[in-house]
Amino acid sequence: MAERELALLAPAAGLLALAVAVSLARSVARVEAGEGKMVEVARAIQEGAMAFLAREYGTLVAFVLAMAAVLTAADRGTRAAGFGPAVAAAYLMGATASLAAGYGGMRVATMANVRTARMAQGGGLPAALAVAFNGGAVMGLAVVGLGLLGLGGLYLAWVDPARPATLAVLNGFAMGASSVALFARVGGGIFTKAADMGADLVGKLEAGIPEDDPRNPAVIADNVGDNVGDVAGMGADLFESYVGSVVAAVVVGAAGVAATGAARAAVEFPLVLAAAGVVASLLGIAVTRAGAGGDPAAALRRGTLAASFLLAAGGGLAAGWLGLPRAAAAMAAGLVAGVIIGLVTEYYTSGDRPPVRQVERSAETGTATNILAGMAVGMKSTALPVLVVGAATLVAHHFAGLYGIAVAAVGMLATTGITVAVDAYGPIADNAGGIAEMAGLPAPVREVTDRLDAVGNTTAAMGKGFAIGSAALTALGLFSAYAATTGLGSVDLLDPRVITGALIGGMLPMLFSALAVEAVGRAAFAMIEEVRRQLRQRPGILTGEQRPDYARCVDISTRSALAQMMVPGLLAVAVPLAVGLLLGPEAVGGLLAGALVTGVLVAIFMANAGGAWDNAKKYIEGGALGGKGSEPHRAAVVGDTVGDPFKDTAGPSLNILIKLMSIVALVFAPLFVRVGG
Amino acid sequence: MAERELALLAPAAGLLALAVAVSLARSVARVEAGEGKMVEVARAIQEGAMAFLAREYGTLVAFVLAMAAVLTAADRGTRAAGFGPAVAAAYLMGATASLAAGYGGMRVATMANVRTARMAQGGGLPAALAVAFNGGAVMGLAVVGLGLLGLGGLYLAWVDPARPATLAVLNGFAMGASSVALFARVGGGIFTKAADMGADLVGKLEAGIPEDDPRNPAVIADNVGDNVGDVAGMGADLFESYVGSVVAAVVVGAAGVAATGAARAAVEFPLVLAAAGVVASLLGIAVTRAGAGGDPAAALRRGTLAASFLLAAGGGLAAGWLGLPRAAAAMAAGLVAGVIIGLVTEYYTSGDRPPVRQVERSAETGTATNILAGMAVGMKSTALPVLVVGAATLVAHHFAGLYGIAVAAVGMLATTGITVAVDAYGPIADNAGGIAEMAGLPAPVREVTDRLDAVGNTTAAMGKGFAIGSAALTALGLFSAYAATTGLGSVDLLDPRVITGALIGGMLPMLFSALAVEAVGRAAFAMIEEVRRQLRQRPGILTGEQRPDYARCVDISTRSALAQMMVPGLLAVAVPLAVGLLLGPEAVGGLLAGALVTGVLVAIFMANAGGAWDNAKKYIEGGALGGKGSEPHRAAVVGDTVGDPFKDTAGPSLNILIKLMSIVALVFAPLFVRVGG
Repeated sequence: MAERELALLAPAAGLLALAVAVSLARSVARVEAGEGKMVEVARAIQEGAMAFLAREYGTLVAFVLAMAAVLTAADRGTRAAGFGPAVAAAYLMGATASLAAGYGGMRVATMANVRTARMAQGGGLPAALAVAFNGGAVMGLAVVGLGLLGLGGLYLAWVDPARPATLAVLNGFAMGASSVALFARVGGGIFTKAADMGADLVGKLEAGIPEDDPRNPAVIADNVGDNVGDVAGMGADLFESYVGSVVAAVVVGAAGVAATGAARAAVEFPLVLAAAGVVASLLGIAVTRAGAGGDPAAALRRGTLAASFLLAAGGGLAAGWLGLPRAAAAMAAGLVAGVIIGLVTEYYTSGDRPPVRQVERSAETGTATNILAGMAVGMKSTALPVLVVGAATLVAHHFAGLYGIAVAAVGMLATTGITVAVDAYGPIADNAGGIAEMAGLPAPVREVTDRLDAVGNTTAAMGKGFAIGSAALTALGLFSAYAATTGLGSVDLLDPRVITGALIGGMLPMLFSALAVEAVGRAAFAMIEEVRRQLRQRPGILTGEQRPDYARCVDISTRSALAQMMVPGLLAVAVPLAVGLLLGPEAVGGLLAGALVTGVLVAIFMANAGGAWDNAKKYIEGGALGGKGSEPHRAAVVGDTVGDPFKDTAGPSLNILIKLMSIVALVFAPLFVRVGG
Repeated sequence: MAERELALLAPAAGLLALAVAVSLARSVARVEAGEGKMVEVARAIQEGAMAFLAREYGTLVAFVLAMAAVLTAADRGTRAAGFGPAVAAAYLMGATASLAAGYGGMRVATMANVRTARMAQGGGLPAALAVAFNGGAVMGLAVVGLGLLGLGGLYLAWVDPARPATLAVLNGFAMGASSVALFARVGGGIFTKAADMGADLVGKLEAGIPEDDPRNPAVIADNVGDNVGDVAGMGADLFESYVGSVVAAVVVGAAGVAATGAARAAVEFPLVLAAAGVVASLLGIAVTRAGAGGDPAAALRRGTLAASFLLAAGGGLAAGWLGLPRAAAAMAAGLVAGVIIGLVTEYYTSGDRPPVRQVERSAETGTATNILAGMAVGMKSTALPVLVVGAATLVAHHFAGLYGIAVAAVGMLATTGITVAVDAYGPIADNAGGIAEMAGLPAPVREVTDRLDAVGNTTAAMGKGFAIGSAALTALGLFSAYAATTGLGSVDLLDPRVITGALIGGMLPMLFSALAVEAVGRAAFAMIEEVRRQLRQRPGILTGEQRPDYARCVDISTRSALAQMMVPGLLAVAVPLAVGLLLGPEAVGGLLAGALVTGVLVAIFMANAGGAWDNAKKYIEGGALGGKGSEPHRAAVVGDTVGDPFKDTAGPSLNILIKLMSIVALVFAPLFVRVGG
């Protein structure tokens, strides 16, 4: 059975990625961590991050076990609806894999930050870049390694493509990954923005102390937030997309084989493509590391591009060899779409391009015009990415039908290894700068970390665009998989259940965003009160004579994040279930499409509006319009503050929302068909 | 031919409405207008409003003639695709009817404002209320009168339900109404907010002079804006919904008759229902006028409720008599949905309810939190209206299929006569207060107009909710009509053209809103510069020794509005055409559904966020949190300024966008079927 052996490539590539991840982690650990104040600050950040993760995981375990029980019960109640103990077990596996990737990646990231600062002090830019990037690469490789190992292992152990019901274990694995991603993104997003707003609004604006100043009680929480939000949250997000896209393509491929007798290799091709992507990512990472001596931005770009080209070549060869040349075209559509969306995002959020310049100039006439200009940029920026996703969908479908759409998503996500590496590099560099500042390292050190951080800001914006674009294609793939699993011949908008489902689905991202924004508001309010209290009760803090209580601020962010993430989380699971049971599988089809359309739009809007405000503020801080402290700067700071929960909490959470809803629908599809409507 | 004679009821009711409108207009004109300064100010407002309208109409005539040429050419090029000179002629009729309603209604509104002020001075609250409401009622009755006269006349003269192609003239009439509505709403919305922001930001904040102070150069433009935006814009919006809903129901009804041999009366029932709605509105207006002696809010509410009950009874009887009992249930679903959406809107935007109180409290921690809280309220407020629209859709469809959905829209809109009357009353009362202030009338006069105005604020918020809800149902009805006309058996979301269409359609409201917000920003910027220039160059203005150049400000708003409304306007027409020709009729189906879902959501979000910010500011100005001039007040003023273009320009324009796109699709449906894809 030649095709079956092909699937072996997936766990093999997964193990390879994990082996390299371990070796890179060791190389990071071997770098000296510095001494004194530096180590002390770094330890506080690491302890805070790990403490948050431990408590978040505690909450998550309860949720995950409850969901596993629901899965088992639903199966019993409906008699072999197709998701039994095996699916529940796979669900637990998926959740565990995501947790492990987040834990390991963040542990290394919080080791790499201080070592990056140390290298910036002792070794200069190239050495600092190498450490920061290696730290990020561990996260990237852990994500793809655990993902492929899990999926490939499950596939080999359990799935028989001739019996489509056995595919349900893959859905279970993906749903486990999604459940963790939701909480990691939402919880991490609330944590990081509450800390950030607390640190900024009281520390910078009220007390007038600079960014990353050790006198600010929320400064450690702020740096912890970069890790739990931008490292662990982003990693879990892309882990989910990665797993979801592969699962969708396998499910749609199997349905095609069953229905039309297409080549069996279509089922294994997504796994092969993902394996090729791991190799391409590893080579890309090597290219980046080799280029670490030069311009950091160029090195990162070169590595990413190399991985894309290698994937295109490798994936194309594999497709040809397997007799699936049309799937190669679909893969290419996804790959190209990912690159274009990244470039568009960069255009709308870079400080030296017209959109951000316009937001910056609008600060001259006050806060209101600055807010309106940022919103307009965010809304306008939705146009091109949506057209690109639409075009990729049409092209992929032209070549290979619904299967092509699912394969396009895999094509976009196959190089997730290096994408996450580049993304996670940013917060590590940011943290390094914070540690240098707090430890009072000499100015040249800060200059090096600032250069690394500036590059990280651009990659972060592009990473957000990529996360949204890939979420859109993944959700489209899962939508196709849902249709294949339910056996719905059509999801007809002329059916009132479908249009009603679409209205409800379209509304959810709005409601979800509102809840996320309110959660940040409440958490930030608690943080502001705490920072004010500390500065009031210990006047010695501002003079440097008393030490702030950092841990208390970390604790407040942690507790707020955990308390506030539950309602939006439950919503994402409960609504598809309720709609499916009350209105039937057609309505769920409409629900998914509505959530996909609005979710993608609102996510792009929020990410890019937030990015534009952020960079407009930075531009003014660079000296434009009177620079820091001027009236335009005050206006820009308000814009940035409004944008923070947009771009770092609500927006990214929507990626998860649309994928999680799709995967919940996919897992419970047999139930909806049996009892829904 | 008994059914055909039924249709006579429509033009008869239309003529009745117009006769009452003329008589009410005369009664307003007979009221004395006061003297001196009062008349002078009122004349300036009327001249400004009429000058804007004349220039706007000039631009519109060019657009409308061009579209008529396109319609004729498209017909020739494709050989009898079904829309020829007759459709072009009907298009011109629809456009003319809308223009006439807007012109007449605004002329009377700008007569009623000064007379309301005069009555507030001489006759007290009941007399002032009567004049303001009579002025609004002229607009309401002109809208329904011209709508029904046109539709009914065309139906009798041209339509033969046995030959569905003849229905295209009704589509043409509706498209004419929509074209005008778009420009009236967008242009009027830009005008009013540019003037408002100019007056507020420079006059109130920089120069520190109160609202409606004659020393403010933009004060006349601001009052003109209330008329062109809230009277003419709102009237054109509801004229379009009214006409569109009736046309959709007739078209779907005729398709049902052709396909299933359903009762022929289904074709005429929407016209009968609309005629019943005119009678109900006239009686409701009479009830309101009879109650003018008491509490103004109670009088307006009583009249509206009376009209709803009368419609329910009359429509139910007519449906029963025609043998269409199930259509009565569909009508009731629409009627009830309209009432509930109004109540939900009131909940989210009233100063004494939790959502606005939360926005108000958030101003205490600064501008950023105030902005975020308003956005959260706006996003949350989308949930209930969407569920209500969804429920109405399901109920209406349950009873009478796609025809039921279209009839539900007619049920919601049949009482448009009194709805517009109540809506237009608000800006008349607002204007009366402005005139009293500018003319320096004694304080008790202003107290009376303030009481009238406060009631107007609540009715305005509810009117916006109604406009959105009715736009949603009308668009759904038009969507059904589009499907019936194209003969599409399904609009399948699994078809990649449909999902791509949905993505593009969903994106348009975002892009459109961005353009509208930017247009207001540019126009307001020009206005701010002008007001600053006048105050700088003529220092005597602030001391009351020099007269500001009001006309120049009106001119700036006019020119900006006309220049900025073209791009969004063309977008709404060009995109459905391009998608239909390039991707085919299925993609247009997806486009309409996507635009409907996102458009409704963003419109509700913008309307309610804007309303919440506005009323939170008013609450603080009432003395809460330190009242006027406090830090929270400054934060609330920024929120209100951000909300202004949301709730009065971008949001309302989306109602038109989704309807106009639907009607363009409907008119060009035969072309898409012939050459699209």
